Amino acid sequence: MNVADLPTPALVLDLDRMLANIDRMADRAERLGVRLRPHVKTPKSVPVAEALLARAARGVTVSTLREAEHFAEHGITDLLLAAALIPARVERATALRARGVDLTTVVDSAAGAAALAAATEGLPRPIPVLIELDVDGYRSGVERGELDGVVDAVLAAPGLEFRGLLTYAGASYHTPREGRAALAELHRAALVGAADALERRGIPCPVRSFGSTPAFLEAATMQGVTEVRGGIYVFQDLFQAGIGACRIEDVALTVATAVVSIQPSAGRFFVDAGGLALSKDRSTAGTDFDAGFGLVAAADGTLLDDLWVRNVHQELGEVATRSGRPLEARDFPIGRVLRILPNHADMTAAAYETYHVARGATVVAVWERRNGW
Amino acid sequence: MNVADLPTPALVLDLDRMLANIDRMADRAERLGVRLRPHVKTPKSVPVAEALLARAARGVTVSTLREAEHFAEHGITDLLLAAALIPARVERATALRARGVDLTTVVDSAAGAAALAAATEGLPRPIPVLIELDVDGYRSGVERGELDGVVDAVLAAPGLEFRGLLTYAGASYHTPREGRAALAELHRAALVGAADALERRGIPCPVRSFGSTPAFLEAATMQGVTEVRGGIYVFQDLFQAGIGACRIEDVALTVATAVVSIQPSAGRFFVDAGGLALSKDRSTAGTDFDAGFGLVAAADGTLLDDLWVRNVHQELGEVATRSGRPLEARDFPIGRVLRILPNHADMTAAAYETYHVARGATVVAVWERRNGW
Repeated sequence: MNVADLPTPALVLDLDRMLANIDRMADRAERLGVRLRPHVKTPKSVPVAEALLARAARGVTVSTLREAEHFAEHGITDLLLAAALIPARVERATALRARGVDLTTVVDSAAGAAALAAATEGLPRPIPVLIELDVDGYRSGVERGELDGVVDAVLAAPGLEFRGLLTYAGASYHTPREGRAALAELHRAALVGAADALERRGIPCPVRSFGSTPAFLEAATMQGVTEVRGGIYVFQDLFQAGIGACRIEDVALTVATAVVSIQPSAGRFFVDAGGLALSKDRSTAGTDFDAGFGLVAAADGTLLDDLWVRNVHQELGEVATRSGRPLEARDFPIGRVLRILPNHADMTAAAYETYHVARGATVVAVWERRNGW
Repeated sequence: MNVADLPTPALVLDLDRMLANIDRMADRAERLGVRLRPHVKTPKSVPVAEALLARAARGVTVSTLREAEHFAEHGITDLLLAAALIPARVERATALRARGVDLTTVVDSAAGAAALAAATEGLPRPIPVLIELDVDGYRSGVERGELDGVVDAVLAAPGLEFRGLLTYAGASYHTPREGRAALAELHRAALVGAADALERRGIPCPVRSFGSTPAFLEAATMQGVTEVRGGIYVFQDLFQAGIGACRIEDVALTVATAVVSIQPSAGRFFVDAGGLALSKDRSTAGTDFDAGFGLVAAADGTLLDDLWVRNVHQELGEVATRSGRPLEARDFPIGRVLRILPNHADMTAAAYETYHVARGATVVAVWERRNGW
């Protein structure tokens, strides 16, 4: 089947671009001497995880228990759930561990440590945890000054097994590219310094897990780090291109959509990919190049210069030229299938249950995604 | 079951608020002497459509063929597909009609009329169509000057049956409340005027379908209009409240979410409803009150004053006070279930396959949603 014949809207994954993205990151990890534990919250798909594991990664990172359960069912059992485990979810986590899944989870606050310690007290086998160290005030995590107290709480909990530290350098997404190497080094040093300090106290800290793709891409060294998480690089998207973490031609994920209406005098046409099919993510609004709700390519993936999705309604995307040049109506007949490059792959992919995997314009496979919680 | 015991995140629908919203709109339609054909692209759910049909509505409006097929399977067969039918979807549409479904669809451009005329030429029974008249340049639709040509094209097509005109007053969402009555009247007059002009040419125009909730809510008369479409009023949301189309206490749809982490010194806590669970819709950013990514209520639905979801990550929502007042950490223990009122119900609901229907804090039913295409 050809992409141009897909029922629209549909999620299309360019296999060769994805494999090239995986290779590029694996090469970088090898050069820096660190292993990858890719975050599969972006693809939520077993074949994608298998492609990652075939190329240097050992184990994956997940964001929900539903992902963990899905990957475990398909034999991928070395899993880091990079989200604070709350008492209500302990039963699902222990059920996975009882089935032989090597599931590690996260404690990211003093209150969370206390709650999880109480909820796991009677477990026959402790649950391994990493403690999230907040290195940039960007998101959740334990401040450096609180860390010893939280480590002690985990060590004192019979139902928990302390495995190490985890950081997420989210601020790197909002730092100009030339500043990211220095930022990555600050975060690496904070992570490794905190882990080493624990070991000096006699507390083994075997896992030192470093997060965020843009920081890793610019880092000069990962010394003392044992694993790097990163997810978006598998697919890439316009936000990543906008901040210089990839090129537009690396973007592997697109939405196939059909022209449904044209208003030549208004200089626009409409496609059947709107807010639900593309998401309303506008993260490129804050970057050097604002891509609206997406850029537009032909069915074979060739970028169509000067077109963008200027606005979205629930089921309609409004396509116009960025320059204001008139559209050639005859180039966009009703039913023509185009491909939209999204701002944020994670948000866009979430509307779909399957990937149509393509090489050029040919669909070569259909892969399942596991959404929800 | 109590809302506080739901696995989170979960979509919660307040039944009494929904029924009150339905009643209010039905009363208004009765006063104005017009029938409702509610747009069920918001709920995408059979029990919600049944509640609407039980209260004055005759037939519903859908936005996708998947919705049409879902409602038809459940015996709701008077359906307006308010989206341009493209040739690739004619087969699904005719399959529905062959099963006895009274499906009407839309032509919204000259190019679309020509394409659909060609694609339906050999059909044994014509497909009824409305022509979308663009009254405000807001979205798709045929300009007034082009209308006669498009009507003639539909009349000349053996596979199409002209049923009337449809408008969508999208600009009403971006017009201050005090201007909406005048705007509604302009749009009504444009619709009825165009329909009457066709009838003067001897072309029967039995359906005159008027769209958009905010315009209808302020309209003084619907004379000459045969049906009003509107969808969001069933659930309401913060955008509707922000533009004065409802009160915050009318919002029937919320996301149940659990506290997963707290950083008291940073004045914030995190819940397990992030960008995927809430959507990244920021439509309230353009209104008088910016609700961030949502406002926060207790598990029983009581609004918690001064809290908002200030930021979202993929699976985390960051909750803080709007005023900057410190949070009382003890009020937000790990695991506490809260409810987030969303900016845009359509976008938020799309992440879920089911509604947990609640009266107060008690879950009384689980209803299915039909997403996708």
